[in-house]
Amino acid sequence: MSERFVFTVKARDGAARTGAITTPRGVIRTPAFMPVGTGATVKAMFPEDIAATGADIILGNTYHLMLRPGAERIARLGGLHKFMHWEKPILTDSGGYQVMSLAKLRRISEDGVTFQSHLDGATIALTPERAIEVQCLLGADIQMVLDECTPFPATRDEAKASLDLSMRWAERSKAAFAAMSAPGQALFGIVQGSVYPDLREESARALIDIGFPGYAVGGLAVGEGQAAMFDMVEIATAVLPEDRPRYLMGVGTPEDMLGAIARGIDMFDCVMPTRSGRHCQAFTWAGKLNLRNARHAEDPSPLDPESACPAAQYERAYLHHLVKSGETLGAMLLSWANVQFYQELMVRAREAIVRGDFAAFAEDVNRRYQASAEVD
Amino acid sequence: MSERFVFTVKARDGAARTGAITTPRGVIRTPAFMPVGTGATVKAMFPEDIAATGADIILGNTYHLMLRPGAERIARLGGLHKFMHWEKPILTDSGGYQVMSLAKLRRISEDGVTFQSHLDGATIALTPERAIEVQCLLGADIQMVLDECTPFPATRDEAKASLDLSMRWAERSKAAFAAMSAPGQALFGIVQGSVYPDLREESARALIDIGFPGYAVGGLAVGEGQAAMFDMVEIATAVLPEDRPRYLMGVGTPEDMLGAIARGIDMFDCVMPTRSGRHCQAFTWAGKLNLRNARHAEDPSPLDPESACPAAQYERAYLHHLVKSGETLGAMLLSWANVQFYQELMVRAREAIVRGDFAAFAEDVNRRYQASAEVD
Repeated sequence: MSERFVFTVKARDGAARTGAITTPRGVIRTPAFMPVGTGATVKAMFPEDIAATGADIILGNTYHLMLRPGAERIARLGGLHKFMHWEKPILTDSGGYQVMSLAKLRRISEDGVTFQSHLDGATIALTPERAIEVQCLLGADIQMVLDECTPFPATRDEAKASLDLSMRWAERSKAAFAAMSAPGQALFGIVQGSVYPDLREESARALIDIGFPGYAVGGLAVGEGQAAMFDMVEIATAVLPEDRPRYLMGVGTPEDMLGAIARGIDMFDCVMPTRSGRHCQAFTWAGKLNLRNARHAEDPSPLDPESACPAAQYERAYLHHLVKSGETLGAMLLSWANVQFYQELMVRAREAIVRGDFAAFAEDVNRRYQASAEVD
Repeated sequence: MSERFVFTVKARDGAARTGAITTPRGVIRTPAFMPVGTGATVKAMFPEDIAATGADIILGNTYHLMLRPGAERIARLGGLHKFMHWEKPILTDSGGYQVMSLAKLRRISEDGVTFQSHLDGATIALTPERAIEVQCLLGADIQMVLDECTPFPATRDEAKASLDLSMRWAERSKAAFAAMSAPGQALFGIVQGSVYPDLREESARALIDIGFPGYAVGGLAVGEGQAAMFDMVEIATAVLPEDRPRYLMGVGTPEDMLGAIARGIDMFDCVMPTRSGRHCQAFTWAGKLNLRNARHAEDPSPLDPESACPAAQYERAYLHHLVKSGETLGAMLLSWANVQFYQELMVRAREAIVRGDFAAFAEDVNRRYQASAEVD
């Protein structure tokens, strides 16, 4: 295993590319989807099953973990990988996004952000330095700079001020990371700028000047719509260096991911497969299904005959019964099948890029998903 | 695989015995613990993992399944085994107990019981014949006669009247079973009689006169206390034929089961391992633990180093975090570890009976459980 963080592009198809990130904890094939393990667990899934879906990396949430069970406690117990029985790479966010969406009484200053824990009301300070310290205590293989996730909508002035603060924090994050990180770990910068093309480009260039081994595009999928999101992605990927991985944060649906891959994105994370799995929704190669729908009540066909996932072999009638009854096994099976669908989507995307027919592949999947949207 | 239902005792130690029930769907080693799969799922467990714990048979609840998804629907989908991905034997109760504990507006007559579904208020009739029909539609390998589960406490007169009705229903159940069942399926009678020794004996003798391939002891573990329960078990097993399996319904704790095995019981079912698993409780070879307890917060030791269960290898600190956070994975791991503990308890009980030191084994387990009760 390499002791360094190395990204290699192996094939290109238009702006889409496929390759691999090598880390001390294993290889991440790209495009990659990272299941979200918010509180040191990808909800309702056994770690072995997550690995068996083909996931090379999962995401942990700094905000949740620093509040419960606490980063220092996880460090004393040997780090996040050991704690949650996951030996492959872990990416952690910086906590900034959740501070904005979950915490109470936030106050942002040049130094950082103070907030009240949504769990017990405790007042907590998160600075760029503390965000890196927490991620290093967790032992994250890929870490994220602390940024201010600009609210949407934002005026140009608000977006510009927010962006400038985030760029100063990015610089401080990098300095803290240099002092605290372990060999082979990597810190990614995050492009902000709301829906303003010039700000997005300015942000990307500012981050390149600071210099990171990978770049994320943040502050999207927050209500701006798919067209605007794709525009912002295109602006960022046009500027970001070809030899560094690009990560679109918090995205998304199969259609969103395929559109972003076509624009040069390499990595994704999203709660959608697991959250949908807990809400009776299944992602399959025939489109999206709602298992609560009465038309599944006596359907003996497997959830997804095209999937290799053991959970996708369960009959729709049984899954319908489980979700109607509120049985945990329903959430367990659908979460598993959904995460595996997302991984299989990445496998097929990589293969399509190698073959040079990514556009046709994406169009086929989009058609399946549009067709199913009319039915359910 | 035999097409007949055959019970063989292989070794005895005092009144305790170990043996095997052979059915068309597989062998049930006794003493046996049956995990409870109320609504066509042993809660929060994958079927493969239930089998891997060593469970030879699980229990399904007729009351729940007839209400949702319905016995006729399950029959159309190929039966309960196929529906819930469980190929080994299934025992179903008759629904009588749940009618008493869950349904609203119950009315008992000579013919049977009518009640309102706790799900949608629908009025439903359950007769001895319908209880058997439902169990045959489900395809249960071991079925139970419909009885009236006598409320506790009951006067002697109430218990006698209830018992007499149950014995008439047992006879009708047997006739219905003869008309509807498949080869190799078996119907068990149920001894009632509350806490009255003479009624218990009368009930056992009445059932023997009707004649069943197995006998259950019902209406216990309802508040009478362990001493009274053991007394009633002793009276029943003294009368019941040696060559038929004996099943103590709805029991219980490790101590209850060991005491009942010492008195000649061969089979058990109980929601305790799975229900406790959903409520932060673990059964281990070191006794019972409450994983919410703060003393586990930084304990890196595995849940149960003496268990072979994969779930029992997870660190107590991680399980503490999961249950404190209300994460589904906590319930999944503890349910799995508990069901496996119950199976391992049966394995060791069988081995102890073969060795002829069952009393010492039971005393050792009881001591571990009493010691742990003081700590948690």
